Amino acid sequence: MANLLRATAAWGLFSCRGYCSRIKQGKLSEDFVEALKAVVGSPHVSTAAAVLQQHGHDESMHRCQPPDAVVWPQNVEQVSQLAALCYSQGMPIIPFGTGTGLEGGVCAVQGGVCFNLTHMDRILALNTEDFSVVVEPGVTRKALNTHLRDSGLWFPVDPGADASLCGMAATGASGTNAVRYGTIRDNVLNLEVVLPGGQLLHTAGQGRHYRKSAAGYNLTGLFVGSEGTLGLITAATLRLHPAPETTVAATCAFPSVQAAVDSTVHILQAAVPVARIEFLDEVMMDACNRHSKLDCRVAPTLFLEFHGSEQALGEQVQRTEEITQSNGAFHFSWAKEAEERSQLWAARHNAWYAALALRPGCKGYATDVCVPISRLPEILVQAKEDLKASGLTDPEDTEELRRVEAFAQQLGRRALALHGTCTGEHGIGLGKRQLLQEEVGAVGIETMRQLKATLDPRGLMNPGKVL
Amino acid sequence: MANLLRATAAWGLFSCRGYCSRIKQGKLSEDFVEALKAVVGSPHVSTAAAVLQQHGHDESMHRCQPPDAVVWPQNVEQVSQLAALCYSQGMPIIPFGTGTGLEGGVCAVQGGVCFNLTHMDRILALNTEDFSVVVEPGVTRKALNTHLRDSGLWFPVDPGADASLCGMAATGASGTNAVRYGTIRDNVLNLEVVLPGGQLLHTAGQGRHYRKSAAGYNLTGLFVGSEGTLGLITAATLRLHPAPETTVAATCAFPSVQAAVDSTVHILQAAVPVARIEFLDEVMMDACNRHSKLDCRVAPTLFLEFHGSEQALGEQVQRTEEITQSNGAFHFSWAKEAEERSQLWAARHNAWYAALALRPGCKGYATDVCVPISRLPEILVQAKEDLKASGLTDPEDTEELRRVEAFAQQLGRRALALHGTCTGEHGIGLGKRQLLQEEVGAVGIETMRQLKATLDPRGLMNPGKVL
Repeated sequence: MANLLRATAAWGLFSCRGYCSRIKQGKLSEDFVEALKAVVGSPHVSTAAAVLQQHGHDESMHRCQPPDAVVWPQNVEQVSQLAALCYSQGMPIIPFGTGTGLEGGVCAVQGGVCFNLTHMDRILALNTEDFSVVVEPGVTRKALNTHLRDSGLWFPVDPGADASLCGMAATGASGTNAVRYGTIRDNVLNLEVVLPGGQLLHTAGQGRHYRKSAAGYNLTGLFVGSEGTLGLITAATLRLHPAPETTVAATCAFPSVQAAVDSTVHILQAAVPVARIEFLDEVMMDACNRHSKLDCRVAPTLFLEFHGSEQALGEQVQRTEEITQSNGAFHFSWAKEAEERSQLWAARHNAWYAALALRPGCKGYATDVCVPISRLPEILVQAKEDLKASGLTDPEDTEELRRVEAFAQQLGRRALALHGTCTGEHGIGLGKRQLLQEEVGAVGIETMRQLKATLDPRGLMNPGKVL
Repeated sequence: MANLLRATAAWGLFSCRGYCSRIKQGKLSEDFVEALKAVVGSPHVSTAAAVLQQHGHDESMHRCQPPDAVVWPQNVEQVSQLAALCYSQGMPIIPFGTGTGLEGGVCAVQGGVCFNLTHMDRILALNTEDFSVVVEPGVTRKALNTHLRDSGLWFPVDPGADASLCGMAATGASGTNAVRYGTIRDNVLNLEVVLPGGQLLHTAGQGRHYRKSAAGYNLTGLFVGSEGTLGLITAATLRLHPAPETTVAATCAFPSVQAAVDSTVHILQAAVPVARIEFLDEVMMDACNRHSKLDCRVAPTLFLEFHGSEQALGEQVQRTEEITQSNGAFHFSWAKEAEERSQLWAARHNAWYAALALRPGCKGYATDVCVPISRLPEILVQAKEDLKASGLTDPEDTEELRRVEAFAQQLGRRALALHGTCTGEHGIGLGKRQLLQEEVGAVGIETMRQLKATLDPRGLMNPGKVL
């Protein structure tokens, strides 16, 4: 949220309820299943109910909608052949990576064939001098960073889950390091895409990994964030960064949201190259204290991290401390040792579970919006009022899911009213299609529809998502 | 060139020859001209030969191809009405900013109406807390930075010319600061675009200026670099940066191209946040010495600049010096005083004129390519050999233009062979359409053609460019 200052507040908890249910079966002809098997081999096709069910949902609360078959292609040629087969038969195609999305992007709303791409998990090329790497769709961000360990380089984009990198490209993912290193959008140099009819597209030309170009339309940018609705990403060329020499983390508690936001603006205006800056409200801090055994003050808090040389960090730390103090910070706490630092960020990464622990036996409902940073205090105040008015904090409420959905929609509208976006990093998926229309307007939606119709004239690529 | 290390070498000089010639006239009906005048008023429409001629070329060597009329809309509503009028009459539309392009992007190859957008020159909004500004198409990069002078912010993208910012967005421009601040592509948050038929599109939704989003297809990225072939950019929301507290510049001479490139890679791997890094070969250095009265060693040379606090710069300078020395640098020269620094960068910015001065009475031919940084030495060696073989350095040559064009095409192909791009910042325009096909391949070109046909079904937006 908020111009790369991400804010996390404890809202959106509701009672546990039945999850995956109806499984459509027998929609596929035997011939068609045989044709799939002819491409990838029998062991790599499944129509087993349990498998279909497992592939019909992500980590969101969207109802499980299973595909009619799951295939595990082993290479890009098979992806291409499968896509051509499905497309010619009018069969929906749903790409599937780690299934860690948060907006129902993998739900097979019209059935069809789920392409599980995790068997394609090779790192195809690493160019350390050019700061680039090429990965197949089964490679996750943690696997890549493990591979890079001795290279002096790393890939900094870190959404909560250990998502696949190609899935992150498809979703437009982000994470805690975006303030310094950008989102996935800023770090994709080239994509290999199987178009719906099976054709192979290299968005920046085959094998290319330059950092800037003015050559023709930006196809790479069009496919990043397209959520599998324009094609299947079968390889991504990513930009790497030098691994930080030294890292220091900190927390800083403030008397108000405004003071935390003002500090953030001043830190950025002072060009302090902060790597991570995350805001947690007092309810979230309390939850983190309890869950992760922290001893932080229960107040609006910034989590910060700096990357650089020993000497550079000393100066960054000092400047930041001065800025926060001049904005009335209560308390500043630096964590320099690796152990202390990872405890802090583990607490931040476990914020979701800390929130869940506030109401044992409940499930969480995740949403995200983004506003210009100057509007962050407003939207936080508004959201807290909405939350109160919604009665969602009443544990006796029996109709919570509907109301938490209404709250998330309202939060999206509030972000739009403050010149923001209804999603900074989770994507549109199933749940935010109406909000997208309000965000980009009639001409924007019509333009997107035209692009979709051009690249997927039969409407078979991950149907029902985004538009 | 080269992964944001830009390299400049002295090639491409040829004899002066006749420039603008044939003026088509009388292609427009009186009724149509009257209709144009009814929208913008008589003083803002011209069909005078001199005006048409002036609008038929940019700063490249592409032959002048004048439009049939020039209009100066005063606001976006007029742009929209004019576009609708032209489109309904099958009349080509050519957007025109400062006319400083380098690939013939404004040549009216099919005649039509040139939209000179320089009368729309307001800065519509400045949000210092959110680091954003909204500019109309008549605002140039220098005008914006003058406006920002007391805000503590600046806009760092700096192509050679004082181009209009919307024109820079249309072209996909870059400049000397790209290594730290990115190209124009990384710094456009939103665009207001008049589509060919007159409809108004806000690529990220009206009034929005957040820094990250995962909401739908990336329309902003599609229009950046589209060279006026998809619509007319009538306003751009740009990302601003904190103005550097202190600046230090330096030059460093090397025994070889390889040593300069190795130094660059090591500087980047060490995460030294260098703001500018430019390579000049020994011929170019010699020309700069003569033209700008510098006293630099005639050798392959890096021009560097660092931005930051006094303390941070001290460390950056020291590290960089160590790295270059370990790579065998001959000579390191720091320029800390503003005057000394601007003399250095003025010399770099005047490199074009320094090259021209090597052969008085000649015109220059500009081209650009970009390769992964590890391949820079190869392409420089290859290009120098090609240059020698081409006979272009022979002043008695009477057929130079054809040969310099052939040399530029060959340079583009060499970049492609080294996994690079045929243009890092000048665009495709008229001259590099064949190279673009080779760069992105048949499926890539077909995808671009489909996008063009979708957004401009009658093919009237800046026809003959890019594709």
